[in-house]
Parts: sequence; C-alpha cells; structure tokens
Amino acid sequence: MDNPHILSRKQKRSSEEIYNQACQFIPGGVSRNTLFHEPYPHYISHASGCYVTDIEGVQRLDFANNMAALIHGHAHPKIVDAVIEQIRKGTAYTLATEAEVLHAQLLCDRAPGFEKIRFVNSGTEAVMAVIKASRAYTGRAKIAKAEGAYHGTYDYAEVSQNANPTNWGDINHPNSVPLANGTPQGALNDVIVYPYNDIERTIAILDEHADEIACVLVDPVPHRVGLMPGKPEFIEAIYKWTRKNGALLAFDEVVTFRVSYAGAQQNYTVKPDLTALGKIIGGGFPVGAFAGRSDIMKVLDPRESKLLFPHSGTFSANPVSMTAGRVAMELFDEKAVLKLNALTQKAIVQIREAIQIADVPVSITGAGSMFRLHLKSKAPTTYREAYQNQEAKVLVNEMLDYLFYEEKIMMINTLACMFSTAMTQKEIDILSQAFLNMFKRFKPQLDSLQ
Amino acid sequence: MDNPHILSRKQKRSSEEIYNQACQFIPGGVSRNTLFHEPYPHYISHASGCYVTDIEGVQRLDFANNMAALIHGHAHPKIVDAVIEQIRKGTAYTLATEAEVLHAQLLCDRAPGFEKIRFVNSGTEAVMAVIKASRAYTGRAKIAKAEGAYHGTYDYAEVSQNANPTNWGDINHPNSVPLANGTPQGALNDVIVYPYNDIERTIAILDEHADEIACVLVDPVPHRVGLMPGKPEFIEAIYKWTRKNGALLAFDEVVTFRVSYAGAQQNYTVKPDLTALGKIIGGGFPVGAFAGRSDIMKVLDPRESKLLFPHSGTFSANPVSMTAGRVAMELFDEKAVLKLNALTQKAIVQIREAIQIADVPVSITGAGSMFRLHLKSKAPTTYREAYQNQEAKVLVNEMLDYLFYEEKIMMINTLACMFSTAMTQKEIDILSQAFLNMFKRFKPQLDSLQ
Repeated sequence: MDNPHILSRKQKRSSEEIYNQACQFIPGGVSRNTLFHEPYPHYISHASGCYVTDIEGVQRLDFANNMAALIHGHAHPKIVDAVIEQIRKGTAYTLATEAEVLHAQLLCDRAPGFEKIRFVNSGTEAVMAVIKASRAYTGRAKIAKAEGAYHGTYDYAEVSQNANPTNWGDINHPNSVPLANGTPQGALNDVIVYPYNDIERTIAILDEHADEIACVLVDPVPHRVGLMPGKPEFIEAIYKWTRKNGALLAFDEVVTFRVSYAGAQQNYTVKPDLTALGKIIGGGFPVGAFAGRSDIMKVLDPRESKLLFPHSGTFSANPVSMTAGRVAMELFDEKAVLKLNALTQKAIVQIREAIQIADVPVSITGAGSMFRLHLKSKAPTTYREAYQNQEAKVLVNEMLDYLFYEEKIMMINTLACMFSTAMTQKEIDILSQAFLNMFKRFKPQLDSLQ
Repeated sequence: MDNPHILSRKQKRSSEEIYNQACQFIPGGVSRNTLFHEPYPHYISHASGCYVTDIEGVQRLDFANNMAALIHGHAHPKIVDAVIEQIRKGTAYTLATEAEVLHAQLLCDRAPGFEKIRFVNSGTEAVMAVIKASRAYTGRAKIAKAEGAYHGTYDYAEVSQNANPTNWGDINHPNSVPLANGTPQGALNDVIVYPYNDIERTIAILDEHADEIACVLVDPVPHRVGLMPGKPEFIEAIYKWTRKNGALLAFDEVVTFRVSYAGAQQNYTVKPDLTALGKIIGGGFPVGAFAGRSDIMKVLDPRESKLLFPHSGTFSANPVSMTAGRVAMELFDEKAVLKLNALTQKAIVQIREAIQIADVPVSITGAGSMFRLHLKSKAPTTYREAYQNQEAKVLVNEMLDYLFYEEKIMMINTLACMFSTAMTQKEIDILSQAFLNMFKRFKPQLDSLQ
C-alpha cells in the first residue's frame, strides 16, 4: 500500500546511486542474477496489487510477479493482516506450530496425490529433497531430467539447464552439461538427460539406465524449456516406464502449481509419486515443500526404526511463511483459479490478434495463468526448437527494455507473463496494446530473425 | 507480545490434538525432526523476549532460540515495527531492493574478510553456495569436512555428520559415511573427512588429496562435534595447508557468527577465504548468506565474460529477511555482543558451581553466547571423545524432558544453550538453579555412565 508518510521519511536515492553502493558489497551488485540489468537494475519503492513503483516514482504493471511467486500480486490486505498478527507473536520457535499443520492439510486436500507433505525454505530445497527422498526410497543414485529444464541450484537438478548447440550433443544421447564450473564429474554421471516431449528418444535413453534411476524429474510446463505443456502421451509414457522399472515419477510444480487447482498434474490421467512445490504456496514469503505418497514420505519419519532420510531445517515451516501461504491459497480457490485462467486466455486471444494485426512471426506457449512469447511463427514443442540464438537473445532484451521503459510493463526475462488475481480486463487491455505497439516497432528485426 | 484478544478468538486445541492432525499430513507429524518429541511435540501459542508460551498456556524460558537463530529472543519490538512497515509495501519483487544493499554493507563492514556477500534462503543453501563457489574458483571437485560436523542438508556437506563407532573407521582415515540412504557414491568419493582439532592426522589426510581439494570446510565452534572451539594452531595449520595447496579455507559460521562481533573468525590470526552465514543475520526470518574475497566472489558476477557460477533464487535477499536481519544486527553491536558473552560466561560460572555442589561428572564446552553440557567429567576436544553412546543419549533425553516439564526451560537437544540479549541475571539464576536441581536428581545415572 502506498503510504506517503513512510516514503517521505526515507532518504531518497536514485537506483543508480544504490546500485553503485551495491557493487561495492555484492558481486555484480545483485543477489539474484535474474534482476541484473545494464547499466543498473531498478530499485523498488513499494508495490500494491499488480502495480509496482520504483524508487524514481515510476509505476509499472507487474507481469513478472517475483518470478511467478505471487498469485495475488503485492501486499494483499488479507495476507498482510494475517502475517502481522503472527509476527507480533514471534516468527520462529523451537516448538511446533499449528500454522504448518493447517497449511499441510490445505495442500494435501487440494491434490489427490499429496498424501503427506514436508515444508522447506525454497524451490531449490524442495527439488533437492524430492531427489534425496527418491534416492532414499529406491536405494538408487541416478536421476533423469529434461534438457533445458530449470529446477533450482542443486548440482544434480541444474545439469544441462543451459545446454546449447556447442555442447548439447546428439539428441539421441544429450550430454550432461555442467552449469557451474567445477561441477563434480560424479554428479554429471548421476544425471541422465532426456529431450522433453520426445517420447521415443526419452524412453530409449531411460531404458539404457533401467535399474539405476531413482526418479524421473518432470516439470509439466517447463518455463525455460519453452513453457509448453508436457504432452499427455509423453507424461503417460514416462509414468509407465517408471512403473515398469522401479523408479519414481517426480514432478517439479514449483512454478506450475498455479496452473490448476491441484497443480498442472490435475491435467493428466497419471499422477506423480512426489511433487516439489514453492513460489505461490508461500504467499510472498520464502517457502518450498515436497509432497507425495505416504509410503515414500515415510523415509522422513523419525518414528521409523531406521530413518532413511534425516531432514530438518531452522526456518522450515516457519509460521510466517505458513500463515501467508495458507491465506494466499485459501483465496486462490477453485473459482479464483478458473477466473484467473480465463483472464489469461482472454489476454492470449487479444495478443494473438495483435500478432496478426502487426503481422509478426511470434508464437505463444503456456498453460493456466502463464504464457511465453517465442520469436518464431510456429510455437516450439521441444527445448532445441525453442532455443534462442544470440541474435534472438539481443532482440528479446531490447523488447523487454522497450516494455519496461516505454510501456511501463514488467515481464520475466524469457518474455513470459505470470498473471495475478489482482488483474482485470483493464490490465489485459494495457498489455495487449503494449504488445501491439512493440510488435509494430520491432517488426523489421522480428522478420529478419526468421 | 501477549495479546489476549487475539488468543481468545482462536479455537483452542491441545498440542496432542494438533499433533494427531499433523500425523495425517506430515511424515512423523513434524516438518523439522529436531522438534520431534514422544508422545507428541508441543505447539506454540506466542513468544516474547526470552519467554515462550505453548498452546496449553505453559510459559518456558527459551535457551534454544530456534536452534541459535534468534539473538534478541522473540518479537523484538524494533524488528517487528521495521518488518511491518516493509510488509505493507510488499515482500518480494522482480526488482532489486535497497534493503539487501544496506544489509550487505552492514555485514561486510563487520568482518574484514567479507569483501563481497550474496544472500540465499537458509544455512543449507549458504553452505551449498560456498562449496559451489569454491569448486567454480578452483576447478576442483572435492571438499574436506570434519567428522561429526553439521553443515545443513546438502549431500556433500552432510557426509559423516552422524558417524558412529560402527561405521566411522580408522581415525587416520575416517570413512565418508552417508547420512541419507541412496547418497550417490560419487558424492561420498568427493568428500574427505578429517578429525576435528587433530592437526597431525588432518594434515596427513589432506596431503593425500593435495591437488584435488576445492575447499576445507571448517565450523570454528562445531555444535554437533561437541561445541568446542577449533584450537588456534589447528585452524592455522589448515589455513597454511590451503595456501600451500591451492585450496580455499571456508568457514561455516551459520551458528557461530554470534560468537564475536565479526564472528568466531575474529578469534583467529588467520581468516577464511569464504564464510557461510545464516541464523541470526535474518532477524528471525529465513536467511542464508555467503561472503568472502572479492576475487573468489567474482565467479558469481554476471558482468564477467564467462560466468563460472550462475546463481539466483526467487526469495533470496527478500526485503523482509533483509530488513529484519539488518535491524537485528544493528542492535547486536559490539557492546551488545560483549554484554551477552559476559552474561553467558557468568551463567557458565554459576553452572560450574552447581556441578561442584552436586558433585556430578559433567563438563562444559562453548564460546561466546553458547555452551553445551557433556556427561563426562573432562570436556571433550574431539568428535570421537564427545560421541555419546545409546545409554548417554537416553539420559540426555530424560534430562531435557525434566528441564522442559519440571523446570520450564527449553534447550537444544544436545544439552546446548544459546543465549539472547533478552536475558538478564534473573534468567541466569533460574537456569543455574534448574541445573543444580537436575544434577542432584540425575546424579546416580550420571555417575553410572562413567
């Protein structure tokens, strides 16, 4: 909420001044590389609903929503009130809290496959825990993951996240490409990389490691692969393969849980054994979680005679994140999900019209309350199809800057939009008009990319 | 703060009732195994300063402080006020925040070795990032860590955390003992385990891997090893070894940053290259950080032509944790550190008197504002000396229950106390009297353990 009294007490500095200070103490001046921007990133003043105001006083319409983490936009009054009540009673204890139990039940009630759940502090920790639980349950070390898929910063999960034509290798056997320098060869050896949405090749690759794979990790709508939903027959084929070979099917729904009431998994006939969660389930506060079959989650139970996966965490299930998350998810009920998805579909229809009017080779992928633009006329269905060359990346950045500075619109740096319930037809109209302006302006470059 | 109005609105349930609900949705009914307690854990109502009130209305004196994470106890008014002001403006954005820059400067100004810093969401993430940064900088895969030391839940960091006489092997070559079932052999191979505070053996072990080690990970006062400070000559020997062999010295100060104004590293003549932080620097909210030499931290800088360690995180450096953390650390200035440490030393003196009066074989280790009891007359100096057999573990749990139920005192389950600035001589007197009562009551069992 905009409170001029609070603002006026602050010493006003420009984003450039703050960034210069930041560079003295933080490598690159940013704590999150996604926020890096030349010549300097912009600093926040305050935000409310779907509008964000930077320290220079410029207000922007927010389709980034902290990388898809905010389902109700910023500072929703009900979340703010509930959190403040909790904070006055403390934020973290060495005792259990009812807040975690209420949120656990809410999430388990939402998705049929969530028989048991545990909370952690981030999506990275959630995916790490899913992988460790899979290993603990199966006694196997290897995992399989999709080329190009982002699953946080755990070494095993980030293999081939940025694979490119110089290193990705034969599509029949994609290389395990390290993201960070110095990644242990042992970690690379324990990750099998499969091509998303390519049934035949994926099954052939998995078959080569039939008795070694603890889990096949799948993001049902993988943002960095291209934000295209996993084909039902692809998901079903992987599911069947895991049944046959004693492996688990693990979904990463950190981003995609917003897609349907029970997550993107609601849209398939088969269910994952384990699911990683994060982002929107924290109501704007740090959170992660992993949920799944009771018999698997038992590896975490301290009452078992042999505890296969010991797991704790100082801030895990802290009552602030739990309270904010529960209120946020209560508000994001079935009706709210359908309404938000319908609004997003409406936006996509309007943007397709803008693409037609401007006659530009642009396509759209997505699901539920999220979509992504691709600078090619036919929507990609695989990571290698969606991959952007350097020329395209430069153009994407120019388009993002145009939207940010000229149209006052914030998007995710893949040209993706994540909607929030704070949005209405008004914001959709602003977005589609802005896109039309952008398409017209960049048409020559867009045409020459093809 | 105790607000009867808020409490009266809540539906009152007993801890047992809540736990029964929890067991339906959470493996073991707890999100953190450290909070597990037979027959059920206790649930929080509210907390203020150094007092915690459970849902049954029982108030206890809190020496656990959320596993050492709370340096000012609960709900410090200045932290509460600052956080509420921030929450009304939003909690997480896809823009940079001044809050992270201010906190980064505060922490870098505190410790001479913190030339640059980056924030993450937990101590687990901080240690993982330190290890990955060390690998990225050196191009090497292996790390060395102390037997018995806890460094969070990253596979590599948790090797040999729970090593015991049946699996720890020859002290000259301690085994790399997996904590979780299914831990990849590759991860175990990449971790060299050294015996804490044992210079000769540690250097001999490191020498066998002289050109393979990215970093030697050291907790300067490792809680689960025994909470005994690293001997200066031990830390210096490791430092010299790393200089000679192109490895980095990495401190885990997630717990120990409270020990001195600049962390436990202030007490040594040599400085680590990298330091992992967490706990108190979040002011009660989820946080982690890693700091160190500029030339190393450059591996994270997106402005470099080759980014060696790409790193981001949805909730990293969120303005709530940053604001709470900055206010907490501002309040924990040099004077406050000295005052708190002096109070802790006073408590230790009184507890030593209680040990003498009760004539029990109990010793104390610790540093700064923390100490740990050992059920042996001579304080241990190594992990294997500090290791408790099953009989001792049972007795520790009985003593913890006695303190919790009879004396209304909360401690960490290793019989450790973590002090907060909310404490005064009054609380120290309560603690030492409670310990005297406990020592007298358990004297027969304590004597028979020896």
